[in-house]
Order: sequence, then C-alpha cells, then structure tokens
Amino acid sequence: MVASPVVNTYPLSSYSFGTKEPKMEKDTSVADRLARMKLNYMKEGMRTSVEAILLVQEHNHPHILLLQIGNTFCKLPGGRLKPGENEVEGLKRKLSSKLAANSPNMQPNWQIGECVAVWWRPNFETIMYPYCPPHISKPKECKKLYVVHLSEREYFAVPKNLKLLAVPLFELYDNVQRYGPVISTIPQQLSRFQFNMISG
Amino acid sequence: MVASPVVNTYPLSSYSFGTKEPKMEKDTSVADRLARMKLNYMKEGMRTSVEAILLVQEHNHPHILLLQIGNTFCKLPGGRLKPGENEVEGLKRKLSSKLAANSPNMQPNWQIGECVAVWWRPNFETIMYPYCPPHISKPKECKKLYVVHLSEREYFAVPKNLKLLAVPLFELYDNVQRYGPVISTIPQQLSRFQFNMISG
Repeated sequence: MVASPVVNTYPLSSYSFGTKEPKMEKDTSVADRLARMKLNYMKEGMRTSVEAILLVQEHNHPHILLLQIGNTFCKLPGGRLKPGENEVEGLKRKLSSKLAANSPNMQPNWQIGECVAVWWRPNFETIMYPYCPPHISKPKECKKLYVVHLSEREYFAVPKNLKLLAVPLFELYDNVQRYGPVISTIPQQLSRFQFNMISG
Repeated sequence: MVASPVVNTYPLSSYSFGTKEPKMEKDTSVADRLARMKLNYMKEGMRTSVEAILLVQEHNHPHILLLQIGNTFCKLPGGRLKPGENEVEGLKRKLSSKLAANSPNMQPNWQIGECVAVWWRPNFETIMYPYCPPHISKPKECKKLYVVHLSEREYFAVPKNLKLLAVPLFELYDNVQRYGPVISTIPQQLSRFQFNMISG
C-alpha cells in the first residue's frame, strides 16, 4: 500500500482567539484591485501569492479556518510575496500579519507543509485556472495553497474587521457559489491526506 | 522555494495504438451495478478501486487518456482490487487488462506515481465525496486516483468496444456535466505538479 501523508488535527476548542487592530483591504472594489495588480505587474512582473489551509477538527470532521470580510466574502489567510521572497518564509510572514499577536514572543509555530494546489491568473481579470492556459506566455499571477500543520495549542489574534470561521469540508464541497472555485475544491485537494484527528 | 513534483509528458504521437477483444461492462444499468456492489460488499466488505491518470501532451498542454464507452460516458482506466490486493500491483493488473496487448512481452512500463485523490461512497448510491462524510462508519467504496508516469514510447491495445481519448485539462476543468465530479476536478488535483513537456 502507498502511504498517505498525515495531518494531525486538533479540536477547535484547543485554540484560543483574541483580536487585534483592523487589517483593512487595500482596495475597495474589484476594479481597484485589478488596477493595482496591473500597476504592480508593470513594476515587479508576475505576482506570486501564497495562502494557507489551516486545519482543525470538530465532530470528527476536518474544518478549515477562513477569514470572513463583511457578511459574505471568505478568504484563506495569506497574501502576496515580495519580489524574490521565499514562499515558505513569505507565507509565515503573511500568517503572522493576519493571525498572530503583535508580540514576537507570541507567534504560532507555523509549520508550512505540502503545496496542494497552484492557480494561475492569465489576465488582469478575476478568473483563475488550475493550469496555465495554452497560449498564455505571461501569466499575471500564480497563487499557491499550502497545508499548514498547526500545533496542539496556539493563540490567534484576529484583526477586528475580520471574522475567523472554522468551516467543515462538507460545507465547502461543491459550493462554488458561496466560496468560489479555489476554496470550494480544497476538499478534493485534501482527499489524499489521512487526517489523524486527535481529541481534546 | 518548495519543489513541485515533476511529471514528464510526451506527445500523443509518440504512442501507438491498436485494438483487442472487447471488454464489456459487467452491468448494463446503474441499478444492476449498485445491486452487484451490494452483493460484493456482503461477501468482501468495502470495495477498494484504483484508477490511473495517464498523461500525454499536445500543443504544449497536458492531456489525460480516458476510455469512452458508447457516445458519452468517459472513465479512467482502472477498476476494483481483489480483497487484500496491493494497490500498486492491482492498478498495474487493471491497466494491463484494459490497455495492454495480450502478450506478456508487450506490457507497457506502468510506473505508478502519486496518489492525487481519494473518493468515498457512503451508500449503495452513485454519489461519492472527497472525504468520508461524518457519521458514516461503514463506507461502501474507497476509490483512489494515481498519476501513472508513462515512458516515452508505448503500445496500447484498446478493447474494440471502447475508444481511448486524449482530453486536455482545459476541457475537463469546470465541466462536471460532461465528466462527473471525479474526472472534472483532476485539473485542480494536478495543479501542484510541474509538467515537463518533452517534444517529439
């Protein structure tokens, strides 16, 4: 038998949550976001972004931590790398910025694990694909999703303008309307993992 | 940077194709199939099936080999393991049964690679999920998809009642209506791979 990679998951209740100063979105509209993306592309070339799949368990089923902005839009914690920045270090930086207390002594132990998906943005548009489409020689963004292995206990500080939700895989699956194409297919990308669900 | 796993892909034209005796489907209807599944479950317990993602390239884009039955239904080559059978050996056996010439000297070099997805059938029904749903303690089937690394040249013998198609990832993506939930999300599951497309 071929061994599956293992992810230890701990109950949501083993983590503690506080708040910190708001982290406002840089853009107030999709059009603004695409315009800023274009400007950055002209300065720095293709954007590389990294996002984290943070797993917990409840009722013996894996849940993913998502940041909710306003009442509907959900995103994975992560963000854009600086030009030339290492992916693993950049993702740790982004995770601390989004989810850690400000004190350097209170940083979670971010163990960056497997890359599970790569998405490509061929044009300055919202649509992305899980491959670089044929005839696209200059994609505008490459987004990589990593599993991040959480330790048994951590403290997360959530920006006051965001909510941190633990969403079960069964809620994400086949729910592109609510979560979009990237997040709604995370259950398929995690299906090859064996979840070692450790009770509290 | 974290290294992506590499898949070498060769042009479709570097493979040759012949035919062999038909391999008929064991069931003539979905109801028959589910009834046979139930009978086998009572004798042998949970069914484990293994399927192969065989990759070729055309026009600098990865394509997957699918077997077409009749005019519409497509499936991956593979099938059910015997009770206790090793997954890798079982997949090689199934691939040879579906796609190899009958001569033992003409077997392709099936290099079974990464498991990219695992699907679960909770009940004797057609619906499957990329996780074992909560409260399901006795799933009826576990289906595993493996990348199979093809050598540069091979001869495939296709059963006369089937057609072997090379379908581009961009055709599978977001096309659940045509290919179903398992095959249509293969592009997402392959997105973490780096395709080393070798020209003919």
